[in-house]
Amino acid sequence: MLVVLALSALPVLAAPAARRDKGPSDEEIAVELRDTALGGESIAYDWVSELTTRFGPRPAGSDNERQAAEWAAERLKTLGFTNVHIESFPLTAWVRGTESAQIIAPVAQPLVVAALGESPPTPAGGLEGEVVIFPTLEDLKAAPPASLTGRIAFVAARMVRTQDGAGYGAAVAARSEGPAEAAKRGAIAFVLRSVGTDSTRIPHTGTTLYVDGRVPVPAFALSAPDADQVERLAALGEKVRIRLFSTASYVPNAHSQNVIADIRGSAHPEEVVLLGAHLDSWDQGTGAIDDGTGTAIITAAAQLIRELPRPPRRTVRVVLFGSEEVAQPAAPYGAFGGHSYVDNHKAELPGHILAGESDFGTDRIYRVALPAAAMKSDFAKTLLRVLQPIGVLPAREAARNSGTDVGPTVDAGVPAFELYQDGSHYFDVHHTPDDTLDKVDREQLEQNVAAWAALVWLAADGDVDFRGPAQPTPPAAAH
Amino acid sequence: MLVVLALSALPVLAAPAARRDKGPSDEEIAVELRDTALGGESIAYDWVSELTTRFGPRPAGSDNERQAAEWAAERLKTLGFTNVHIESFPLTAWVRGTESAQIIAPVAQPLVVAALGESPPTPAGGLEGEVVIFPTLEDLKAAPPASLTGRIAFVAARMVRTQDGAGYGAAVAARSEGPAEAAKRGAIAFVLRSVGTDSTRIPHTGTTLYVDGRVPVPAFALSAPDADQVERLAALGEKVRIRLFSTASYVPNAHSQNVIADIRGSAHPEEVVLLGAHLDSWDQGTGAIDDGTGTAIITAAAQLIRELPRPPRRTVRVVLFGSEEVAQPAAPYGAFGGHSYVDNHKAELPGHILAGESDFGTDRIYRVALPAAAMKSDFAKTLLRVLQPIGVLPAREAARNSGTDVGPTVDAGVPAFELYQDGSHYFDVHHTPDDTLDKVDREQLEQNVAAWAALVWLAADGDVDFRGPAQPTPPAAAH
Repeated sequence: MLVVLALSALPVLAAPAARRDKGPSDEEIAVELRDTALGGESIAYDWVSELTTRFGPRPAGSDNERQAAEWAAERLKTLGFTNVHIESFPLTAWVRGTESAQIIAPVAQPLVVAALGESPPTPAGGLEGEVVIFPTLEDLKAAPPASLTGRIAFVAARMVRTQDGAGYGAAVAARSEGPAEAAKRGAIAFVLRSVGTDSTRIPHTGTTLYVDGRVPVPAFALSAPDADQVERLAALGEKVRIRLFSTASYVPNAHSQNVIADIRGSAHPEEVVLLGAHLDSWDQGTGAIDDGTGTAIITAAAQLIRELPRPPRRTVRVVLFGSEEVAQPAAPYGAFGGHSYVDNHKAELPGHILAGESDFGTDRIYRVALPAAAMKSDFAKTLLRVLQPIGVLPAREAARNSGTDVGPTVDAGVPAFELYQDGSHYFDVHHTPDDTLDKVDREQLEQNVAAWAALVWLAADGDVDFRGPAQPTPPAAAH
Repeated sequence: MLVVLALSALPVLAAPAARRDKGPSDEEIAVELRDTALGGESIAYDWVSELTTRFGPRPAGSDNERQAAEWAAERLKTLGFTNVHIESFPLTAWVRGTESAQIIAPVAQPLVVAALGESPPTPAGGLEGEVVIFPTLEDLKAAPPASLTGRIAFVAARMVRTQDGAGYGAAVAARSEGPAEAAKRGAIAFVLRSVGTDSTRIPHTGTTLYVDGRVPVPAFALSAPDADQVERLAALGEKVRIRLFSTASYVPNAHSQNVIADIRGSAHPEEVVLLGAHLDSWDQGTGAIDDGTGTAIITAAAQLIRELPRPPRRTVRVVLFGSEEVAQPAAPYGAFGGHSYVDNHKAELPGHILAGESDFGTDRIYRVALPAAAMKSDFAKTLLRVLQPIGVLPAREAARNSGTDVGPTVDAGVPAFELYQDGSHYFDVHHTPDDTLDKVDREQLEQNVAAWAALVWLAADGDVDFRGPAQPTPPAAAH
């Protein structure tokens, strides 16, 4: 129904505005950018292939993350971007050590687990306890004080598969808040069913939250089949005891960094369209879809614009953020790359006309959301004419939050756009060792680059004020 | 084409032979067995669920394998089987310890590996060396003596996905022979791309072979994405150095066991239809599809026959073999469960009229092969009338090798049948930690039970001499 309504709006869109006197129109150039990307002529695949192959995992604050940033800056210079530089910032890094888990009773069995990011180590000899199963985080929160003394809390909730990622939002609170809630009730450790949609023997890590500067108990994600196994054993009437071991550690004086690169605007260089993605990744995969492809999509889209015969009127800025994935023990507790950018560029932010982020894998873009001020604009109509042929529908609501990295920029008043990717399969490999290059579909990747290049070009070469008030909706026609 | 030919043979099959004077015909009973299984009324799913949940991995010679055998024997007694007992035999067990691998140059990256079964440990500090990539085992065999001194041989060949498992046969020689071939040329270790058809960050273990009583160098399987990564790094012009670590060990005085259970034949109890599958599994998964479902299929099929109002004329024997997966340092070098059965039952083997094995996962049966003597028999015609409605075609050739466990029995002269399962997806999780219950499709499982129950009933209640000479093929009609 939604699809039908959206498509039925198409015929009322205006025909392309020609500017033949000045060469091809912005719309014609956007179509050319789109089709060049669809033709496989962008640098996107080579970028994500080389990034993930040369540097592997790029955890926040690691040597690999720094070397990847240096490589990216060098590559952006070679590609002809200007103002290319690295902006470093301090953070507390977290280092996974050796980890393992077993069922020790009723019969010994190995478990496949991953320590949650920021989770403290176990004692050197590991820790053992009886598992107490909670169907949801709310059930854990309802447990009385001291009811878990000496035991291990297990939240078994299953993430729901959705296209827009809503299932993740609903499930991730258990990972964020679970360790502290378990500790409050006396638990010696916390485990949860991986926040993911697959059924493979691969656990999903992800950050948990510091409370008063520390994560109170060791915390682990079980792979889905391991979570099933513990639940089935309990359903057979068995008391399940498990052993957990981790040598995770912290590096309080680490550094991460953002990489910045511009295409300088010809008429209004102080007006900036900001494109963000993150270079850091979790430590077990190679961060191919989270977020190697994001960095590839925005860089390749910008590069297609850079190769046009003339630059856009406004500046296009690529920011490859550091340290997107991890929580921090001190305020603002996370998104240190995004906050560092705002701190360093506060004076420029009033000139930032629009910001967007690519951090949802590499599946196709199916929907675009714009700032309220632009939803009824000629810009929106032109954009939809360019994007609808490649399967992108207009969102019914204005863009709000474009992502973790550009979040602080958006919070500072910069309008956001969103190119929604299909997330139906994203959480099959998200935050796992299995986030590797083979999961990248080139055709999907190229569709992303096509949409980004077209949108960014139209915004950067136009004169829309994305900060203005929302245009009134005309009264609905009777029918 | 093959399918069309096979189906076109159907109309010439004779109509069911009625035996109304004696109650339902064998064919009518076979149809009833088939449909009962398809209706989900067999014990198959509950069997594999409880087996894999209670005992997890069941490596040959382990406590888990022994406890699973004791549980199975107890369960078979409860189900009403006769002659239920356990036959123990000695073997050398292999125990995976802790293992890890990393790329150490050009940039540090973790690798996901699994030591091959029977592979010796590395030195306590691990071992490091430059990787030399061979596209195939043949390329490794063509390398000159001493050409790998101090280095690590890597066979990168990819297994081909096939329905009948032929791709495994072609690929597995690298796992069996690779370590010895690498060692001959001075290599300090051997790695190979996992023998598997998936692209997940999960390696496939499996046994390698002893040579003169030992496996000469430590040997590991890389997951497919890890193999890709090493190949891509080399393609970027980098020399790749890796570090390997394993604390694997041997237990020379271990024991494994076969579990035996009969439905005693009413007319010819000394004539035996033997149904085999194996209780042991690799040590990282829970052996759900290899071979928990095999044990479930044959046990459930036999149990449906046991519940009939009258027993079959011949004996139906279920054998749940031990130690199918591992090679051994001494003759006969493997299949110790199968050899133990032959040793213990030599005197009975002349009465074994037919043997079959279920050890290829849980996907649908699509083809049946019979001994040459029975290919043109009324038994075959009846069987095909019962099985073709559930998607089973006749094989064009006689059954030869029914599997590792019944292999020694077949080699001793007992005729074999084969119910071929679709193996297109079997090698996605075969020999991996991901071989877990969630991979079992109940509908497929029930189709397997249906086919087994029907075939075994018709063979056990009939009087076919499967050992006879092949019946001549009538001359093809001109057309």
